[in-house]
Amino acid sequence: MDEFEFIKQIKPNYYRHDTIIKGIGDDAAVFRQPYQDVVTAVDTFVEGIHFSKKTMDPFHIGYRVLAANISDMAAMGATPVSYLISLVVPKEWTDEELIAIYKGMESISKAYKIDLIGGDTVSGDQLVLSVTINGKVEKDKVRLRHHVRSGDVLFVTGTLGDSACGLDLLLSDDPRVESHRYLIDRHRLPTPRVDFAERLKVLNRVALNDISDGISSEANELAESSGVSIYLDYDQLPISDELRSIQSNKQEEFILAGGEDFELLGAVSEKDWPIVQEAAEKSNLTVTQVGYATDGDSTVYIHQDEKVRLLKRGGYVHRN
Amino acid sequence: MDEFEFIKQIKPNYYRHDTIIKGIGDDAAVFRQPYQDVVTAVDTFVEGIHFSKKTMDPFHIGYRVLAANISDMAAMGATPVSYLISLVVPKEWTDEELIAIYKGMESISKAYKIDLIGGDTVSGDQLVLSVTINGKVEKDKVRLRHHVRSGDVLFVTGTLGDSACGLDLLLSDDPRVESHRYLIDRHRLPTPRVDFAERLKVLNRVALNDISDGISSEANELAESSGVSIYLDYDQLPISDELRSIQSNKQEEFILAGGEDFELLGAVSEKDWPIVQEAAEKSNLTVTQVGYATDGDSTVYIHQDEKVRLLKRGGYVHRN
Repeated sequence: MDEFEFIKQIKPNYYRHDTIIKGIGDDAAVFRQPYQDVVTAVDTFVEGIHFSKKTMDPFHIGYRVLAANISDMAAMGATPVSYLISLVVPKEWTDEELIAIYKGMESISKAYKIDLIGGDTVSGDQLVLSVTINGKVEKDKVRLRHHVRSGDVLFVTGTLGDSACGLDLLLSDDPRVESHRYLIDRHRLPTPRVDFAERLKVLNRVALNDISDGISSEANELAESSGVSIYLDYDQLPISDELRSIQSNKQEEFILAGGEDFELLGAVSEKDWPIVQEAAEKSNLTVTQVGYATDGDSTVYIHQDEKVRLLKRGGYVHRN
Repeated sequence: MDEFEFIKQIKPNYYRHDTIIKGIGDDAAVFRQPYQDVVTAVDTFVEGIHFSKKTMDPFHIGYRVLAANISDMAAMGATPVSYLISLVVPKEWTDEELIAIYKGMESISKAYKIDLIGGDTVSGDQLVLSVTINGKVEKDKVRLRHHVRSGDVLFVTGTLGDSACGLDLLLSDDPRVESHRYLIDRHRLPTPRVDFAERLKVLNRVALNDISDGISSEANELAESSGVSIYLDYDQLPISDELRSIQSNKQEEFILAGGEDFELLGAVSEKDWPIVQEAAEKSNLTVTQVGYATDGDSTVYIHQDEKVRLLKRGGYVHRN
């Protein structure tokens, strides 16, 4: 299947958004967004680096790369609308596998009502799937990392560490893999929190960051961008029953440094915290207070085992 | 140099467009374009497929991939504004080479006044540089392939085949390479025709396609999309003195099938043809009538050696 053939095969018959003026089929795509700001991000997924055939089926690859992009939109308080793909395909990949990647993208596209509007397919040595997503957000309602203020409640949606534990199970030759479908699916088929983020638009200010590299990294990004200190309480971090039931000496690592949960870490004034809780309830999502922000030196501390310690990116807890 | 380091190094200190609300440094970039449509395209460039260290220095790679994207904007009648990069980097590539790629991008960005607003850098086996560009165009002034009408003048900017000939010289071990700097530069440092395309905005209708795969392919795309027949005259096709001076049995192939000239192939009513000529003159560009469109069967014919023959994609002339 050559490039033209593939683009033809995956070209949608209609677009879900009437803001799409021209999709696939010309030198570029065209869309119109006069009343809202455009939010855009790119995410790249490389075979052997981000996934392997052992950890993902082709369907999951398509699903997962788009999930990361959609999650970036949620982290900005934006609604995803459309995307473009760049696909580098090695000769060994069959047409069926390519179609399966596309089906994974289409599955999550349908769930989040987004449109494929353009793409480029080329050959290469290693599968690379790169997606650029476009979303929309009301003017001045974009949720930036520097929006944390001293006194804010720090919160997390859902649970932490599931995806990292799922990946660990997939990479191990642990015979329990199949009995841990929930954790595996949290790695392969994560759920970006768009609905919840959209419901927060009643708030004038909320800081959001999606958890792609682990809460320790995301909290440090918030603290650095906002010039505050963040205190997290290890015992308050939300853990799923499934993760709790796994006997693993890596549990702390999964929780603090496990990436790709695509949950949201946020900060909001104490006054507005009930509105956040209500938004989560309406989205059928749990939301948990995990700490607070104070005036400080752009660092993150964690309260654990009755001690307060420095928490660095990558889940490194400074124990001295 | 890790991912954060590279993004930090190339993060611009300011943005050329005040429509950029947030560039690099959060989960996504944000821009505002209330009065015009957004035009977007992605183009991917793979080592060993689209270029090699023999044909391009790192500077050229950065320049060239962005040139292709900017040319897509010209082909839509749009003004390029901003772009996001996805870079897959093999271990063997040095920091200096990466910075040189970035310098190539920055060089053409400056010339066309566009802003880098986001990116993703990951490691991999093979260098892959993918760029998504965003541009703007007045509502209903986008130049689509299906806009050709029977009776239209077909025209081409600049000259054809130079880039393909430049590439051929680079790939050969021809000692003349250095004396053909013009052709080499046309391959490595092409010039998208944005200014010319912008000047055509006075016209209600003009079809444009940029010549990335050779005039035979682009003419077939116009004929198929518009449901017309296109007649080209081989002797009218504009050839540079430099290409003419090269003794090569591939000259016809360069002219008809040579890609990456990034000139524009367009179609306009006879009445508006003088306006196109005037726009070219103001852009210091030659524009040449190369044929015309008629009612027909979505095919392309070429008049050559006193015969009219079918011209297929890839420069294949049906001689029977």
